[in-house]
Amino acid sequence: MIPTPILDKIQTPDQVMQLSAKEKEALAEELRQTIIDRVSQNGGHLASSLGVVDLTIALLSEFNPPHDQIVWDVGHQAYAYKLLTGRKDQFHTLRQYGGITGFPKISESKYDAFGVGHSSTSVSAALGLLRAKKLKGDDGHVVAVIGDGAMTGGMAFEGLNDTGHFSENLTVILNDNQMSIDKNVGGLSTALANLRSSTGYIKAKGRVEKFLLKIPLIGKPIARMLRAIKTWFRLLIRRNTPVIFEDLGFRYFGPFDGHDIPLLQKKLQIAKQIDGPVLIHVITQKGKGYPFAVEDPSSYHGVSPFDIEKGVQPSEKYTFTHCFSDSVVRVGEKYENVVAICAAMMTSTGLVNFRKHMKLRFFDVGIAEEHAVTMAAGMAVNGFVPVVALYSTFAQRAYDQLLHDVCLQDLHVVLALDRAGIVGADGMTHQGIYDISMMLSMPNVTLLSPCNYAELDRMLEWAVAEGKGLVAVRYPRGGQSEILEKIPSEEGIGPRVIREGSDVAILALGVMCEQALVAADELEEKGIHAKVIDVRCVKPCDVESWKILLSGIKKVVTIEDGIAHAGFGAFLMSQLEEADAMKDIEHFEIFGVSDHPLIAGGRNVLLEKEHMDAKSIVEKIESWT
Amino acid sequence: MIPTPILDKIQTPDQVMQLSAKEKEALAEELRQTIIDRVSQNGGHLASSLGVVDLTIALLSEFNPPHDQIVWDVGHQAYAYKLLTGRKDQFHTLRQYGGITGFPKISESKYDAFGVGHSSTSVSAALGLLRAKKLKGDDGHVVAVIGDGAMTGGMAFEGLNDTGHFSENLTVILNDNQMSIDKNVGGLSTALANLRSSTGYIKAKGRVEKFLLKIPLIGKPIARMLRAIKTWFRLLIRRNTPVIFEDLGFRYFGPFDGHDIPLLQKKLQIAKQIDGPVLIHVITQKGKGYPFAVEDPSSYHGVSPFDIEKGVQPSEKYTFTHCFSDSVVRVGEKYENVVAICAAMMTSTGLVNFRKHMKLRFFDVGIAEEHAVTMAAGMAVNGFVPVVALYSTFAQRAYDQLLHDVCLQDLHVVLALDRAGIVGADGMTHQGIYDISMMLSMPNVTLLSPCNYAELDRMLEWAVAEGKGLVAVRYPRGGQSEILEKIPSEEGIGPRVIREGSDVAILALGVMCEQALVAADELEEKGIHAKVIDVRCVKPCDVESWKILLSGIKKVVTIEDGIAHAGFGAFLMSQLEEADAMKDIEHFEIFGVSDHPLIAGGRNVLLEKEHMDAKSIVEKIESWT
Repeated sequence: MIPTPILDKIQTPDQVMQLSAKEKEALAEELRQTIIDRVSQNGGHLASSLGVVDLTIALLSEFNPPHDQIVWDVGHQAYAYKLLTGRKDQFHTLRQYGGITGFPKISESKYDAFGVGHSSTSVSAALGLLRAKKLKGDDGHVVAVIGDGAMTGGMAFEGLNDTGHFSENLTVILNDNQMSIDKNVGGLSTALANLRSSTGYIKAKGRVEKFLLKIPLIGKPIARMLRAIKTWFRLLIRRNTPVIFEDLGFRYFGPFDGHDIPLLQKKLQIAKQIDGPVLIHVITQKGKGYPFAVEDPSSYHGVSPFDIEKGVQPSEKYTFTHCFSDSVVRVGEKYENVVAICAAMMTSTGLVNFRKHMKLRFFDVGIAEEHAVTMAAGMAVNGFVPVVALYSTFAQRAYDQLLHDVCLQDLHVVLALDRAGIVGADGMTHQGIYDISMMLSMPNVTLLSPCNYAELDRMLEWAVAEGKGLVAVRYPRGGQSEILEKIPSEEGIGPRVIREGSDVAILALGVMCEQALVAADELEEKGIHAKVIDVRCVKPCDVESWKILLSGIKKVVTIEDGIAHAGFGAFLMSQLEEADAMKDIEHFEIFGVSDHPLIAGGRNVLLEKEHMDAKSIVEKIESWT
Repeated sequence: MIPTPILDKIQTPDQVMQLSAKEKEALAEELRQTIIDRVSQNGGHLASSLGVVDLTIALLSEFNPPHDQIVWDVGHQAYAYKLLTGRKDQFHTLRQYGGITGFPKISESKYDAFGVGHSSTSVSAALGLLRAKKLKGDDGHVVAVIGDGAMTGGMAFEGLNDTGHFSENLTVILNDNQMSIDKNVGGLSTALANLRSSTGYIKAKGRVEKFLLKIPLIGKPIARMLRAIKTWFRLLIRRNTPVIFEDLGFRYFGPFDGHDIPLLQKKLQIAKQIDGPVLIHVITQKGKGYPFAVEDPSSYHGVSPFDIEKGVQPSEKYTFTHCFSDSVVRVGEKYENVVAICAAMMTSTGLVNFRKHMKLRFFDVGIAEEHAVTMAAGMAVNGFVPVVALYSTFAQRAYDQLLHDVCLQDLHVVLALDRAGIVGADGMTHQGIYDISMMLSMPNVTLLSPCNYAELDRMLEWAVAEGKGLVAVRYPRGGQSEILEKIPSEEGIGPRVIREGSDVAILALGVMCEQALVAADELEEKGIHAKVIDVRCVKPCDVESWKILLSGIKKVVTIEDGIAHAGFGAFLMSQLEEADAMKDIEHFEIFGVSDHPLIAGGRNVLLEKEHMDAKSIVEKIESWT
């Protein structure tokens, strides 16, 4: 651990205000080293956190939480803020079970004004905070800090539109690092780039205006005309800003160097004085302070533990994402009508390879899951089979588009749901545990859950070549275990027995087959013969197949990495009951995530806490005998 | 019926191209009369349909569907398009069961490029259609027609951003009628208003430029300066357009009179020739051609059948919406920390009264359900209890915000879900049959389903004063029947017996109590004593109460106006099973909507078709004896 004498003195955020400019500069360095040190051990979001260290110090020099409220969009950049708001001593527990979370969380600290995790919510949340303050007569300020990537999400636009129209006294900091997780796309990013390149021009403006003042007056009409021109000229200068924000009713200032703390403080002071919405555009460098991260910010967005001297090493480990990445290239090369779509996560979803091989058929639409899905629906209407790759948790953003634009029209779209199930350290806001419930009520849906790579590869091809309507394939974060790898891949998508037994049937979804097989082994030792069924197809429910598979079985267990009473188990049970197939079943137990937010933690820790591990299954089944 | 000689000759849309300018003008009149005539009989969307008649003729004069594809945003304005694309003879079946739908639908006609119903999807869908065309080498054009209201939805921004960045050859028509269903809000609408008022200025621009050219040259430096000023001036003129679209990469043209067919055709010709995205801004008048509708377009947005001579009469009928409208005022006056929020539907949701009485505590955020919910969450953090009023079908747009921003943070927000259940003539895209499934998997949710006005009033107060977390109250389109009215209101929110019986229990959600009570009467005649339980609280499930209520009962029926196997019935069954309370139950039958898109039709027709009526319940129960 490097010494952090200044940081050590900061017990509450208001103490930042009392530091000298020089101390603040030193504090920034201490914060950066602390963050690099910790993330290298715990993993986490590095590049974006390092980018906003100076901005965080400037904000705390001018605003005083919790009286003033700061909302961080997405929130993975809030590590410095956490360190400066009373969580320095717990910072070593970052992202661990029971530790401090990787994102702002209102139940963790009174200084966290709003919990985040998903993109583009900050302006809306901040506006809500502000309107409440106004109604209460509370004069505290509210600030939203949003990246240029998050700004491409439609929700941010909705928030700006409402704020501008009612001229609410909100300060929005546009943290422009020219990146989402990958390089940004979208017309807006071009507009911002134009603006950044125009800073020289803006500097020149002062000189030109002085010259204008010196133009001699030659007769009255011309003088009048020149005055008019000067006015127009000023308008023009004003308009040569990213007018998109001004059109929405904001006063725009920028762009400024987001690492110049005194400059930032000056601009924040102006924002505080202005009555009405202000947008301050600051340019920051992702990864600042750690050369490896500056050079390759995409790879240093979210990282696993790494060696500080050597930097992040390419992972040797093959995961479900790599498997999807290979499969989608294979399938895309085989079927020319396949197109691939992602929402600003080309690298994270593994579509980077597809793009390399089939660039014309690849579309990155920005942080815009809603648009991604409906755009896909449009391509499906005209004969293509789009594979839309989204993390399960981010697919929530496109619920209405999946239902209204894909399912109701019965369009053939493939949804690759990465990070389905328990995700681990990213925690509550990123758990992929809702997609099963989401899809069960939508018509014209096939929801598949492969248990290993071979099955994922086969199912993806099935989804493209034989599937109809919306075919969603869900697979988890991380890789397959040895146990899962050994499960043979078989034709078809229906449920299938992967271990014979007659005393009890354990029906497992996807990688939960591992817990089922381990439980079956343990039960065998106790003389209980468990049949294990790999569910594969969550929906639709082929009741006739299930009746055959469960015939003679009196005890049934289902295990899924989704919400217990609103998922596959309940769905199956109700259909078996309808088909009069429940009468011989004495026990039917559903294992899944309980009805509460699921916090961060290792996968195994959470499986145990949620009683979804092999041990819990064994105990339940034993209790029946 | 008025004579429609020109319309009668149009069998396929390409015949519109062959008409003279004069015939087109006459055709517009015929279309308007036909629409007024039909909507006065069937009900439907009048004002917006009348507004785009001329634009529709202009579009079909320049574009040739299905080779060219036109996507109508929301789609309630597409009646003229339907009449001109081969559906004139079926137009009398508009919005009726088995008839032509009130919105474009790809399965209805090859001329409907994309199915719509929810707002702000057109740009995304059109871009998908276009990208598919491009990959196939098809040179057809794609046009999206979007209202200024729909343009405030974030998804439209996402679509424009993607289109502009990749400079796709899309034509977007901004149909600016200065209205959503109510008057528009948002910074964007102000920007558009400024633009409309600047048309005079733009006309003056030519004169000013001419004058500039006449300025004498006085020495070289000044001449240079003046040349520079002239360039800047031109830039300024260019910039005095709603640059928001140009910033996103579009070529902007407008605003133009949206009722001048020859002018519109000229502008569409230009759009066809330009390579890259073009936005054409047209001003139309909602309701044009029917003076009543022009005067009060909000009331003529969606109408029930009416007398053409007298216009729409204020409905005498009190509905659940009126009940909510009164209740929310009562509750708001009683509890000062209540705020009310809607998304561009102040009148339709009944919040217009709340606004009248408590203007400072009322917020209309535009067509922006996502923002509405997260803004509400922000207000909840700072101590207010927001009542967010949305139609059930439109709440789908805010799935992620409800889950991620409200539920995971356990914030106290009340969601008033109007039009929950079967909605009737608006059809497939507007059915409120998914909200139960949506809410069941979310943590920290209470979902209430009142069976009549008295219960709605009481539950709304309970939601505000005693509820915790997200409290959703769902109520249907239309009014309470006499049977429902007679059900007494009782304290509490838990399930309660509203009719005693011992042979079978019928568990009914909300207004489905009517079917349950009717069925119980019929069963009584057959000697079967049915207990009827008003479920009231869909979630959370109080298993202990249910065990008591169902004790001694061997046959259970649940009836809900949601998706059968992914709703309340399955949720309850799985929890009873877990509590070992299913073993004495011989039959458990779930009645609900089947797993398919539910088309338009009268409520009673659909209840019968879905086997959710009293008769079906009786038949099923009889079959068990």
